[in-house]
Amino acid sequence: MMLLDDLPTPAFIVDKHAFQQNCKAARAAAAKNGIPRLRPHVKTHKTIEGCIIQAGIHSAGEEESLADVIGFVASTLPELAMVVKLGCQYKRKPFTDVIFGIPICKSKLLSIQSMSHELTSATHGEGCIHVIVDNPQQVTFLEEFAQQNTSDENTQRWSVFLKLDTGYHRAGITCEKAGVNLATQIINSTHLVLKGLYTHCGHSYNIQDSGVMKETTNQDHSMILGFLNTLRSHLKSSNRKFDVSSLSISVGSTPSMFSHDNALKIPNIELHPGNYVFYDRQQLWTGACSSEKSIGGFVLSRIIGHYDDEHRNAIMVDAGATALTKESTPQGSMCSVLGRPDLECYRMSQEINMIRCKSEDGAKPFPFQEFPLGSTVLLIPNHSCLAAACFEEYHVVDGGDNSVSTKSEVVEMWSPVKGW
Amino acid sequence: MMLLDDLPTPAFIVDKHAFQQNCKAARAAAAKNGIPRLRPHVKTHKTIEGCIIQAGIHSAGEEESLADVIGFVASTLPELAMVVKLGCQYKRKPFTDVIFGIPICKSKLLSIQSMSHELTSATHGEGCIHVIVDNPQQVTFLEEFAQQNTSDENTQRWSVFLKLDTGYHRAGITCEKAGVNLATQIINSTHLVLKGLYTHCGHSYNIQDSGVMKETTNQDHSMILGFLNTLRSHLKSSNRKFDVSSLSISVGSTPSMFSHDNALKIPNIELHPGNYVFYDRQQLWTGACSSEKSIGGFVLSRIIGHYDDEHRNAIMVDAGATALTKESTPQGSMCSVLGRPDLECYRMSQEINMIRCKSEDGAKPFPFQEFPLGSTVLLIPNHSCLAAACFEEYHVVDGGDNSVSTKSEVVEMWSPVKGW
Repeated sequence: MMLLDDLPTPAFIVDKHAFQQNCKAARAAAAKNGIPRLRPHVKTHKTIEGCIIQAGIHSAGEEESLADVIGFVASTLPELAMVVKLGCQYKRKPFTDVIFGIPICKSKLLSIQSMSHELTSATHGEGCIHVIVDNPQQVTFLEEFAQQNTSDENTQRWSVFLKLDTGYHRAGITCEKAGVNLATQIINSTHLVLKGLYTHCGHSYNIQDSGVMKETTNQDHSMILGFLNTLRSHLKSSNRKFDVSSLSISVGSTPSMFSHDNALKIPNIELHPGNYVFYDRQQLWTGACSSEKSIGGFVLSRIIGHYDDEHRNAIMVDAGATALTKESTPQGSMCSVLGRPDLECYRMSQEINMIRCKSEDGAKPFPFQEFPLGSTVLLIPNHSCLAAACFEEYHVVDGGDNSVSTKSEVVEMWSPVKGW
Repeated sequence: MMLLDDLPTPAFIVDKHAFQQNCKAARAAAAKNGIPRLRPHVKTHKTIEGCIIQAGIHSAGEEESLADVIGFVASTLPELAMVVKLGCQYKRKPFTDVIFGIPICKSKLLSIQSMSHELTSATHGEGCIHVIVDNPQQVTFLEEFAQQNTSDENTQRWSVFLKLDTGYHRAGITCEKAGVNLATQIINSTHLVLKGLYTHCGHSYNIQDSGVMKETTNQDHSMILGFLNTLRSHLKSSNRKFDVSSLSISVGSTPSMFSHDNALKIPNIELHPGNYVFYDRQQLWTGACSSEKSIGGFVLSRIIGHYDDEHRNAIMVDAGATALTKESTPQGSMCSVLGRPDLECYRMSQEINMIRCKSEDGAKPFPFQEFPLGSTVLLIPNHSCLAAACFEEYHVVDGGDNSVSTKSEVVEMWSPVKGW
């Protein structure tokens, strides 16, 4: 029996129970808010085991009150290949329906086409990889690729989600004329199929007030409905027959996942959170994660220094920027210590991290005897997606309703896919 | 012939020519400043190939004006194993003399002892791994381990560098009474040998003024000399015979490497920079790296978005926080574009990064035609140690005196060691 305390450090620890509970809570919340479909992102955990839990295929019996899991989103080719592998194995949704979630580029087409063939062949045409488009040039190179690679046996069209910018101002074409023209271009293409619209409610990461969060998601939905209406009129005026209400509308983000209420009755709406499986310190701030008990991903670290002089009054642990990353959050600091709100991580280098007591002048005596040299602590990373990506393997514990501690037993090992 | 432009992105690119020049410049500067010995850190590159270039074993003929490379520093067990492997193969310095550079903890002793046996056996007792101590408890568990694991055939003592805090206030015991007592404890131990003192001039990372940098290194040297004098007196007063001037004095950091002048004639002084092999945006700020031509490590990224609306006026590239990390620097921003001081990376997510023109109001038109969708750019990371650690392999180019560009040819592949 291997306890966390016995592991080489740093190590990434997954609480399977929290992961499962978080997945169920997301499905329940979506259903309650009038959103019957969930399309989880796999970028946070990048594992086969995580996909299976997100899919919820082992939780029969309570399906009525939970949103259906109808597909996945992936943001690297290895993540996509992982879901496709599951699709070929299970031959059923959600594994057979996956969006490659960053704007498509030419150099990735050959890989995606090869995976697409594999998936459609294993599922007798049921499975599908969708690509994201937010620029007319992407339509051009998708068409050119299709023309060059289409044969009699292989007449597959590219299934496209159009990415819209609804206020986050990162990826996505504007909802104005440019967006409508691009949607029309896709609809009119003989090599492309417009499958849906995709928005990322990323501005929600800076919102802590639930009223403001609600307002933000409402704006997102309003802009999408406005876009659908403009598109419908535009197509009608040019006599192009296309059922706009058939489009899948993929919205969301983890901070906003509990605030997406389908009051505006958007047809075929689906929610695509990702970080919710682990949560992290940022999500404790936004309120998407309500307590440390829901945290599903930690960095285990060992105490390797005691410094009780006037300049420090602190301990040092062996997890630094290569294990936790340097994402900042509104709370300040780079991570926190599970169960110890009285402590703060105040300084981080490549392989180490300094922890002291919170106090106005930094002079509160550190309880060194509670943290002996060689003992371990569980750190809550600021951004679990980035911290998890630092590791080649995860050590999995499953404490049920008991809290995870450094005495928890390792019950499984998960291996995330790596690279791009 | 594979060009950078043809590679899957993101990719980590090493300019071997810059790497070699940086290694030579470090040795030349140390020698010029009266420091005849260099002990490079391997944490930045983590590769066999990088160690061999740092060692300078292929640059015979100019040795007189260059500092000797006498050993290495490693900060993870895989890095240590890599150097030990080279030590067993080459059976000569610098590969046979290596410091494990973070404070020693009990759970790593078995691995280090095993590597130590391997090295001493391959080198007939010449090779040595040194551990870092900054706490009396570490002496206790090193002694206990030695007592439990010493046999007639195996009477090796732990070779110890005492880590001193000379102002950075991270690891290291104070130079006051506590430090002197710990040094004495090590000297008096039958299982330990005090090999040297180790300081990290880490506060230099925040210094841009060369006068202040010089002052900082002078303070570092003064404190070490003061410590040596106090220790000498202390040992004399207790009638303990020990030649304090035989200790190796390991100092430095990349920002301060050109400012360590041995005016105070510290005996057996050695310099241990690490980041200097690649440099990065932080080092362009400190001035340790004087121009982009000296940058040896880049992240190659592909343009996947063009956004010419009022909110953005920017491009998107496919290298985000999992490829560049979110280290901040005094210049602001997360990275820069090689050869394009007019551009700034203003926003980074997990897998993407937004780039626009620098301008007071952000409204300067972006030259989209110079950055077509699908083309590539070379990004200079803020902190190359952290960015390199994101990758499983490096693509190496060697342009000689020519600048690296996205049309440079890949001539080698290097595989860094991973994990801890």
